[in-house]
Amino acid sequence: MMKVLAAQINPIVGNIDGNTAKILHMMDRARLQKADIVVFPELAMSGYPPEDLLFFSDFLDEIEKNLKKIIEKSQGLFVVVGLPRRTGKKEGKALFNSAAVISDGKLLGYKDKTLLPDYDVFNELRYFEPSDDQKIWVYKNKKIGILICEDAWEQSSEITGVNYAVDPAIELKKLSPDLCIIPAASPYYYKKNELRKSVYQKIAKFLNCPVILCSQIGANDQLVFDGYSMLFDANGALKQVAKGFVEDEFFIDLDNDVTIPAKDEPLDDLYNALVLGVKDYFFKLGFSKACLGLSGGIDSALTACIAADALGPQNVKALRMPSRFSSIEGIEDAQQLTDNLRIELLDIPIDSMFQHFLDLLSPYFYGRPFDTTEENLQARIRGMILMAISNKLGYVVLSTGNKSEMAMGYVTLYGDMCGGLGVLADVSKNMIYKLAGWINRKKEIIPQNIIKKAPSAELKYNQKDQDFLPPYEIVDLVLEQYVENHKPIEQIIRENKLPKDLVRDLVERIHLAEYKRRQGPPGIRVTRKGFGVGRIFPIVQGWV
Amino acid sequence: MMKVLAAQINPIVGNIDGNTAKILHMMDRARLQKADIVVFPELAMSGYPPEDLLFFSDFLDEIEKNLKKIIEKSQGLFVVVGLPRRTGKKEGKALFNSAAVISDGKLLGYKDKTLLPDYDVFNELRYFEPSDDQKIWVYKNKKIGILICEDAWEQSSEITGVNYAVDPAIELKKLSPDLCIIPAASPYYYKKNELRKSVYQKIAKFLNCPVILCSQIGANDQLVFDGYSMLFDANGALKQVAKGFVEDEFFIDLDNDVTIPAKDEPLDDLYNALVLGVKDYFFKLGFSKACLGLSGGIDSALTACIAADALGPQNVKALRMPSRFSSIEGIEDAQQLTDNLRIELLDIPIDSMFQHFLDLLSPYFYGRPFDTTEENLQARIRGMILMAISNKLGYVVLSTGNKSEMAMGYVTLYGDMCGGLGVLADVSKNMIYKLAGWINRKKEIIPQNIIKKAPSAELKYNQKDQDFLPPYEIVDLVLEQYVENHKPIEQIIRENKLPKDLVRDLVERIHLAEYKRRQGPPGIRVTRKGFGVGRIFPIVQGWV
Repeated sequence: MMKVLAAQINPIVGNIDGNTAKILHMMDRARLQKADIVVFPELAMSGYPPEDLLFFSDFLDEIEKNLKKIIEKSQGLFVVVGLPRRTGKKEGKALFNSAAVISDGKLLGYKDKTLLPDYDVFNELRYFEPSDDQKIWVYKNKKIGILICEDAWEQSSEITGVNYAVDPAIELKKLSPDLCIIPAASPYYYKKNELRKSVYQKIAKFLNCPVILCSQIGANDQLVFDGYSMLFDANGALKQVAKGFVEDEFFIDLDNDVTIPAKDEPLDDLYNALVLGVKDYFFKLGFSKACLGLSGGIDSALTACIAADALGPQNVKALRMPSRFSSIEGIEDAQQLTDNLRIELLDIPIDSMFQHFLDLLSPYFYGRPFDTTEENLQARIRGMILMAISNKLGYVVLSTGNKSEMAMGYVTLYGDMCGGLGVLADVSKNMIYKLAGWINRKKEIIPQNIIKKAPSAELKYNQKDQDFLPPYEIVDLVLEQYVENHKPIEQIIRENKLPKDLVRDLVERIHLAEYKRRQGPPGIRVTRKGFGVGRIFPIVQGWV
Repeated sequence: MMKVLAAQINPIVGNIDGNTAKILHMMDRARLQKADIVVFPELAMSGYPPEDLLFFSDFLDEIEKNLKKIIEKSQGLFVVVGLPRRTGKKEGKALFNSAAVISDGKLLGYKDKTLLPDYDVFNELRYFEPSDDQKIWVYKNKKIGILICEDAWEQSSEITGVNYAVDPAIELKKLSPDLCIIPAASPYYYKKNELRKSVYQKIAKFLNCPVILCSQIGANDQLVFDGYSMLFDANGALKQVAKGFVEDEFFIDLDNDVTIPAKDEPLDDLYNALVLGVKDYFFKLGFSKACLGLSGGIDSALTACIAADALGPQNVKALRMPSRFSSIEGIEDAQQLTDNLRIELLDIPIDSMFQHFLDLLSPYFYGRPFDTTEENLQARIRGMILMAISNKLGYVVLSTGNKSEMAMGYVTLYGDMCGGLGVLADVSKNMIYKLAGWINRKKEIIPQNIIKKAPSAELKYNQKDQDFLPPYEIVDLVLEQYVENHKPIEQIIRENKLPKDLVRDLVERIHLAEYKRRQGPPGIRVTRKGFGVGRIFPIVQGWV
């Protein structure tokens, strides 16, 4: 009989004491439930990703000190806990991305990660030295092997497109493990879990032994970790899945052949990722209240729903800030939405302020036509009001811009881009409609008017987004192919039979808006390629 | 007789056609001057750093196409030109950071970089695969070896603190080169050139042959490349140095033993770096005009000097935007400064606008005292006015905040942090005073009043920075030790005999302001560790 607790915890990056307390608590829970083995996620002690905190020697000392506490309290358990540790060598990077292997009050040793991802949002080679030492630990007559996250992915390089020169799974297989434990910290993106299942299924089949994946959950800055720890049997069949987007005590009885199937619900996951992204940003920073501008459009409506779910309706303040260009329907729709969500709605009309700015600036603008300057003034007055409410009353501003707008630069820097967090910054316009439909699946929360009306910034008379942009279907298509897949422009034109100038123009806009996005709030990353972390492009460039 | 042109060019990142045109022009110049060899900087064809542009296959195709042009036009020359190139292998990263070696219309081969920096501002392992193949090319009876930038630094690992497991210089030495060519792209920081000289001196001595360093110049986003290409003889003596901060046709006659000594002028270099940072940001983006807010303080005064030098006084517009808290002297000092610099000065008082915001918000703020909310309102009104001038009249806003303020969060997000470029974002307050003194070394340009007065944001009555902060000497000391050197807090306290709470408080402020800095404009990086590129810390963290 062998019982395992995959402790799917939500660490706070850098909070070593707090994370250790969680780890010790889970070890107590394991003992109470008579588990033999407790597994924690990758870098559980520091939280993932610890980034440049790893350069402080006292940070590493603190981890070593807390590891001793964990070792001391490991009676009766076999514990695998992720942590950064010093290599002790003069050459190469100073650290290993490691897992301490502990049993019954003793440190048995470490398994150091072999494959260090250095693509997309990962930059592990900045901190860590690879190790190609594969090991087996024997506990209660079971030979236990460990792979850390990426170590298990080389078997699926045809899926990921990343090829390493070595494959730790091949070496591990030679040691004939009876069980393979995989501590991981794998950030969510839309539909990633399908991919992930196929990767771990393959590794279980390849190693011909059960595989236990223990994943981090929780949002850290722009990344959301979705959890979904898993058990696969030696045939690669998925037997059990932990919950997604919450901490979970995931107990596994290796000798009891039950199958608890799990269905992928991509829209549920996406919505949960956004909610967790907001929730953890606030909770981990010690904030509880949010405010946002409600324009009557779909983006701010969706943001309000997410905020209300993440923080509770009583902690969300919506501001309606109409100008001379705001439609009456939009104003009414905002009222209906806040009624449905039971969040507070303030009215602060901005038109007199807008006029004051026009008057102040008229000597310098004399004879020049209305242009984006005046549009931006309105967006910036709204931003200022939100920030004043934030400063005075302690609300964090949520920015409501979507990925398609951010791509096109169809946002106002220091205006609607104000905020501590860009909730929808990685959600394209078309996904926003899908999420709105999903939210309304049982009853109408977002008024149909908001969903049906043509998108408009309402910064001048009769303005529509499509006066300036092609239909969002096309924007989003180019966005996906150019930004997410790095397809060359010519290939996009050819494969989609789109006009050359149209595609070129959209790609140019994407690069031109780089300077705006660089100053945008951090966005919650929910696609394979967001505009924040994981995408590095120059503002000043001569390619596009 | 052997004559070499080290073509110290300023490429635009991604502008492959334009960069190739520069390369071809320099090859013509070399032929005209009867040079035998022409060397270009690291990644000269793409510009450094090309970042994720390297993920586009058409980008690489374009480089291959242009390389053919260079090969075709290489008659009578031996050419070494830096470029990214495909490895052609399935495993590992897709590219080498390479130098094409060309002679007389033929591609002789490539030297691929061995040591790929992945620390500070560098992330070459994201893109490139290391190569440990060291080679010799023979041209006119000289055995020529090539090391690319970092390849020459392992000999000086005690200086840099970075240790690689291999050292390409040792392998190259075995091949007994008569000359070593080093294409480089090495970003400037304060006093880096002293370090650089000692590194290349050492490599020349070690290889026992002359060394020619050909460096990129020019500013690319946050990085400034200073040039200063060099010739060392086989004894490690520095014989010739190219100009700093400008493109230079640096001709070297290897058989003519002249020594043209160069003195380091660190403040000249720092000022030139800032000027080039502004100049290239504007020039490479196609802008020519800048505006900025003049507060009467030293930061905005220094920014105005830099802008006037970079863009010409006729292209700089200063805005004086006094509120009820602005001092009369500050207003007069701003006038004197703009007279000295011959830049335009506009007066746009903001007090009525400030009052309008106070009135608008008073129902929500009733009974609450004046706090940073009202201070931020003033800074944000100024930001809005600058952005309106920018939008309507085509001026790029320069942000004037210094590194010490940015560290402490003593800046207003969307207020004085508005701008396309943070000119002084990496210059500490104490360095700002040094630069102001340096600017006034011949005659008074920045009025003494501005230099002498106690720093103040003038956002409330009788406000001084030191009401809120310890003296800037202490702020800057902690900044240097904590941010630049990653010293643990306890060590800073111990070594400097500073009060524990004071240091802890300053370090906490540094981390608390991370969310503001993340939304700040890109800053020109001039120290070993700036707050922009090269420093990666979480906003949400529980360590400090």
